[in-house]
Amino acid sequence: MKVDVIISADDIKEEKIKGKSVVVIDILRATSVIVTAINNGCKKVIPVVSVDEAKEIAHRDRGMHLLGGERRAVKIEGFDFSNSPLEYKPNIVNGKILVMTTTNGTKAIKGSTAAKNIIIGAMVNAKAVAKRLLEINNDVVIVNAGTYGEFSIDDFICTGYILSLLKESANIELTDISTTALYIYEQNKDITSFIKYANHYNVIKDLGLFEDLKYCTSKDIINVVPEYKDGEITAD
Amino acid sequence: MKVDVIISADDIKEEKIKGKSVVVIDILRATSVIVTAINNGCKKVIPVVSVDEAKEIAHRDRGMHLLGGERRAVKIEGFDFSNSPLEYKPNIVNGKILVMTTTNGTKAIKGSTAAKNIIIGAMVNAKAVAKRLLEINNDVVIVNAGTYGEFSIDDFICTGYILSLLKESANIELTDISTTALYIYEQNKDITSFIKYANHYNVIKDLGLFEDLKYCTSKDIINVVPEYKDGEITAD
Repeated sequence: MKVDVIISADDIKEEKIKGKSVVVIDILRATSVIVTAINNGCKKVIPVVSVDEAKEIAHRDRGMHLLGGERRAVKIEGFDFSNSPLEYKPNIVNGKILVMTTTNGTKAIKGSTAAKNIIIGAMVNAKAVAKRLLEINNDVVIVNAGTYGEFSIDDFICTGYILSLLKESANIELTDISTTALYIYEQNKDITSFIKYANHYNVIKDLGLFEDLKYCTSKDIINVVPEYKDGEITAD
Repeated sequence: MKVDVIISADDIKEEKIKGKSVVVIDILRATSVIVTAINNGCKKVIPVVSVDEAKEIAHRDRGMHLLGGERRAVKIEGFDFSNSPLEYKPNIVNGKILVMTTTNGTKAIKGSTAAKNIIIGAMVNAKAVAKRLLEINNDVVIVNAGTYGEFSIDDFICTGYILSLLKESANIELTDISTTALYIYEQNKDITSFIKYANHYNVIKDLGLFEDLKYCTSKDIINVVPEYKDGEITAD
């Protein structure tokens, strides 16, 4: 099993992901939100690129849909929720459809449609993601959403954690960038010691969202593995 | 001074380098060759993308020109030299013009023409490069040539070394990818302990080129800082 890494949504190239099993990672905070919402009973998540498209879909049946997401890390006007996973509680999301638009995560998911599978990964479900990848047993590309087209330390260290889990159970072939992600994780297994250098981590910290940071960097608290297919994210 | 890093020649985006001072790094082995040749008296280096173009230029005055470079890490048919810096000795290169074509390094140089300056960097002249960047005092983008469009550990750790030198003397603002390069270097100052994981390092090792690897990973043995301008690389 070969495992490669793409360092930002802007660096996705079709030939690198075609036929591969892609894991999209945007731990601060889009994929942490998706995994949490699905785990808390949300029927499906519809990721869309624009605010207008999100509103248009939600207004087809406003009672059934929740509008969530962010621009510049804050809630969008007219939306129900921001991009904080802590808002997506069971009593709120159960049985509903979440229409979501975020700056980086949505772009990474939409940009990966040439892949065979698109799995939604985060620290919170990393172990379940690794298990699923081992079951699929296909070459893997871990797509880091990154931040505004840039490499982001938070996604990279989560990638390293997933690589360490894969390495425990399989003979994986690493590219140089995978080797580097794995190294960063192995030197900083507590996550926090390295993630504190991430510019985006500090943006969210400056917004006072400490509980979000604590939650999004928690390992393996969720077992679901959401998958994107035909415009929708669901879990079996 | 902001310092960003681009991880491969295929990932250069004009808007990221426009007006910046770019350092192109391809330590195994194009930029190590260029720095060595210029240091040993070579008048100028003309980097070109194709083998035919290289031959065409050299044949205008065959006595004055040397043909050097590689494809798949080995010498090109009809060329004088391969991509080993150890071949470019003073008695051979002095007063001559080197026409050079390599897989990754040439592409990185040619792809960086939107920059204000294009400096040629390697481990062998890292300290001199850092000094020049501090003199120029412009925002910097360190462009890693990488290997066949991929991130390459060897260029990345050299980037980290240059960052550590800049940090000693200036207040530099790092992106997440710069922070990661700096971290990798600081954890592996001997270079070898980490570079041994690089796929391209092992390709060259498998070709038996141990002396090349030893030379290309030597720090600060050369003081010249070659610069690319209008199709030619020279040093003041």
